[in-house]
Amino acid sequence: GGLGLGLGLGLWRRQRRAAMAASEEDEDEQEEEEEELRQRFMAPPVSGLRELRRRRRELRSRMELLIMETQAEVCRALAALDPGAAFAVDTWERKEGGGGVSCVLQDGEVFEKAGVNVSVVFGLLSEEAARQMRSRGKSLKAKDGKLPFCAMGVSSVIHPKNPHVPTMHFNYRYFEIEEADGTKQWWFGGGTDLTPTYLNEEDAVHFHKTLKEACDKHDLKLYPKYKKWCDDYFYIKHRGERRGIGGIFFDDVDSPSKEEVFQFVKSCAKAVVPCYVPIVKKHCHDSFTPEEKLWQQLRRGRYVEFNLVYDRGTKFGLLTPGSRIESILMSLPLTARWEYMHTPPKSSKEAEILEVLRNPKDWVH
Amino acid sequence: GGLGLGLGLGLWRRQRRAAMAASEEDEDEQEEEEEELRQRFMAPPVSGLRELRRRRRELRSRMELLIMETQAEVCRALAALDPGAAFAVDTWERKEGGGGVSCVLQDGEVFEKAGVNVSVVFGLLSEEAARQMRSRGKSLKAKDGKLPFCAMGVSSVIHPKNPHVPTMHFNYRYFEIEEADGTKQWWFGGGTDLTPTYLNEEDAVHFHKTLKEACDKHDLKLYPKYKKWCDDYFYIKHRGERRGIGGIFFDDVDSPSKEEVFQFVKSCAKAVVPCYVPIVKKHCHDSFTPEEKLWQQLRRGRYVEFNLVYDRGTKFGLLTPGSRIESILMSLPLTARWEYMHTPPKSSKEAEILEVLRNPKDWVH
Repeated sequence: GGLGLGLGLGLWRRQRRAAMAASEEDEDEQEEEEEELRQRFMAPPVSGLRELRRRRRELRSRMELLIMETQAEVCRALAALDPGAAFAVDTWERKEGGGGVSCVLQDGEVFEKAGVNVSVVFGLLSEEAARQMRSRGKSLKAKDGKLPFCAMGVSSVIHPKNPHVPTMHFNYRYFEIEEADGTKQWWFGGGTDLTPTYLNEEDAVHFHKTLKEACDKHDLKLYPKYKKWCDDYFYIKHRGERRGIGGIFFDDVDSPSKEEVFQFVKSCAKAVVPCYVPIVKKHCHDSFTPEEKLWQQLRRGRYVEFNLVYDRGTKFGLLTPGSRIESILMSLPLTARWEYMHTPPKSSKEAEILEVLRNPKDWVH
Repeated sequence: GGLGLGLGLGLWRRQRRAAMAASEEDEDEQEEEEEELRQRFMAPPVSGLRELRRRRRELRSRMELLIMETQAEVCRALAALDPGAAFAVDTWERKEGGGGVSCVLQDGEVFEKAGVNVSVVFGLLSEEAARQMRSRGKSLKAKDGKLPFCAMGVSSVIHPKNPHVPTMHFNYRYFEIEEADGTKQWWFGGGTDLTPTYLNEEDAVHFHKTLKEACDKHDLKLYPKYKKWCDDYFYIKHRGERRGIGGIFFDDVDSPSKEEVFQFVKSCAKAVVPCYVPIVKKHCHDSFTPEEKLWQQLRRGRYVEFNLVYDRGTKFGLLTPGSRIESILMSLPLTARWEYMHTPPKSSKEAEILEVLRNPKDWVH
C-alpha cells in the first residue's frame, strides 16, 4: 500500500538518521540489517532492530520476531491473491509503553476487509485487568499494588467478499507478569478458526487437518483438546450457535516449558497460510447469487454479536486504557445485516451450516 | 401486516372461544369490549382483557394499558408515513411467566427497520438480575432466596432509510419486586432519544422542546436532570462519543409517589409521536448522495457498538433465561458498516455531528 509503505519507510529513515553518529562500519552493518529486515517485516518491530538482535536469546525477542514474521507472511500471501489492492501499514505507539503495527486491506477485489495487527505493549497492569486474570485462577502478588507486564501478539481477521470464501481469524500471543518477589509468570494463548457462510466439507477437513498436523508434531493430545476449547469459546450463547466451524483455541498455556510452548505456537503460526490460502484460491472466483450475499451479511451480523458481546480479547481491549480502538475493532466486518426473525427453510444450504454451528462436528476422524 | 394481523386475530378468537361457556349477556358485553380493544391495541394484552378490567384500579393494569396504547399509537403513526409497508405483529409467551407483543416493520419505503415491542414478564428474579439490582443500591430481602417480580415495558427503535431522517429510540418500563416481608419495591424507568446521521438544529430543538414540555408539566427540575442522565447514559466510552443528540433518560424513579411518577411516564409516552413524527415527515423525501448513505451506515455501526457493548437493557436481556432474543435484538439496524480509521474532513457535515456527539449541547435554553 502506498500510504502504508510510506509510513513504514519514514520510520526506517528516522531510525537511520538517529544512528548517524555511529561509526562508518556500524553504518554499513546497520544498512545490511535494515535491508534484510525490510524484506522480512511490514514495518520496524516495536522494540527496535538493534535491541531485538542484542537480546536475541530471550523468549520475548524471539516471540516478537515470530509475530512480525507471521504478520508479513500472511499479508504477502493475501496481497498476492488480491493484486489490485494493497495493505495500508500503520505503526502506532502507546503512551503507557509499547506500540504496534496494523496492516489493513479494505474493499479489495477478493477481500472486503483484511486486518493483521501486531502489538507489543508493556507497563503496569490495570486493576481491572489484574482482577480478570485472578478470576481465571492466577495468583498475582503485587508490589505496592503494581504488576509490571509485557503482552505481545499477532491477531488477524480476514473477511472476503465472495460468500463462498470463509472468514478466517487467528491470534497468537505471549504474556509476562512480574510479581512482587521478582518471579515471572508467563503464558501463551492463541488459535486459528474458520467462519464459512456456507458449509464446504472438503474445506473444513483441509482446514482442521492442517491445524491437526501442526499440533501433532508436538503432542497428539493437543489438537483434540484445543479443537474442543475452540468450539466452547466461540459460542454465541444467546443464539445457541458457534461463530463458525472452529479450529483450535488455547489460553493460559504455561507447560511443559517456555521453549516447548513457543515451538508449538510457532508451528501454529506457520500453519496459518497453508490452512487458509488454498481455500481462498479455490473459491474466490466462484459465482454467487444476491441471496447468497444476503446470507453472508446476516452471518456477518452474528460475527459482530460474538465479538462485541463475548470475545475476551475485544472486551479486554475496550477496557484497557491507552489501547488502540481502531486496531481492536479492525476485526469487525465492513458490512453486516440484522433481519428480524430470519429463519432459513429446512434442507436449504443456509440450514445446513446452521446445523453445524449448533452441533459442532469432528472433521478429521 | 398480513401475517401479524392474522396471528393477533387468532389469539382474539381463541380468547372468545374460551369464553363460550359464559352467558349470552356476558358474551355480548365481551364482544363490545373486544371490538373496542381491537381498535385500541395491536394484539390482546398479555394479562388478558377481563383481568385488566377487573383490576383496573391497580397500577400494574394501568401501566399495561398505557404501554399497549403507546405501542398502537406509535405503530399507527409510523405506518401512516410508510403506506406500502405494514407492521408484522408477533405475540409470544415466556414459559417462566408472561409474554409480549412485538411489532416490526422491515425494509419499507421510509423505514429500514422499525420495531415496537411490549413485554410483560413475571416470575422469580434470577440470581444475576438480583445481583445487578443490588449493585445499583437496592436492598432486596429475599424469602428462601426467592424474589417474585413483575416487569413490563414498551421499547422501540426506529431506523429510517433516508440519512436525513434520524433514528429514534424510546422505552418506558415499570418494575415491581416483592420482598420477604411482603413489602413491594417498585420503580419506573425510561426515556426517548434521537440519533441523527447529520445535525439539523431545528429538529434537535423541536425534539428536546417537546420532551421538555412533557417534563415541565410535572416538575421543572425533571428535564434538565433527565437530559443530562441521557447524555451520560448513551456514552460509547471507547469512542469518546455519545450515541446521538440525546433526549431524556431516567431509571429507578420511585418518588414522589407511584401515581405521580405514572402520570409523568404517561406524559413522556404521549410525547413520542409529536417528538418524532414531524421530523420524519419533514425529511423523508429529502434527496441524498451515496456518500451521505455511507456515513449513515458508519453511524449505524456505532449504534450497534453501543447496544451490544454498553446498553443495560440489552445486556440484561441477553443474560435473562427465557428472554426473547429476536425482540431484544430488534433494536439493531438492518445494515451497518465499519471502516478502519474513517475520519471525516474538518468542517464537513460529518465532522459537525461528531463534534456534538463529543460535546453535548443544550438545545432549549
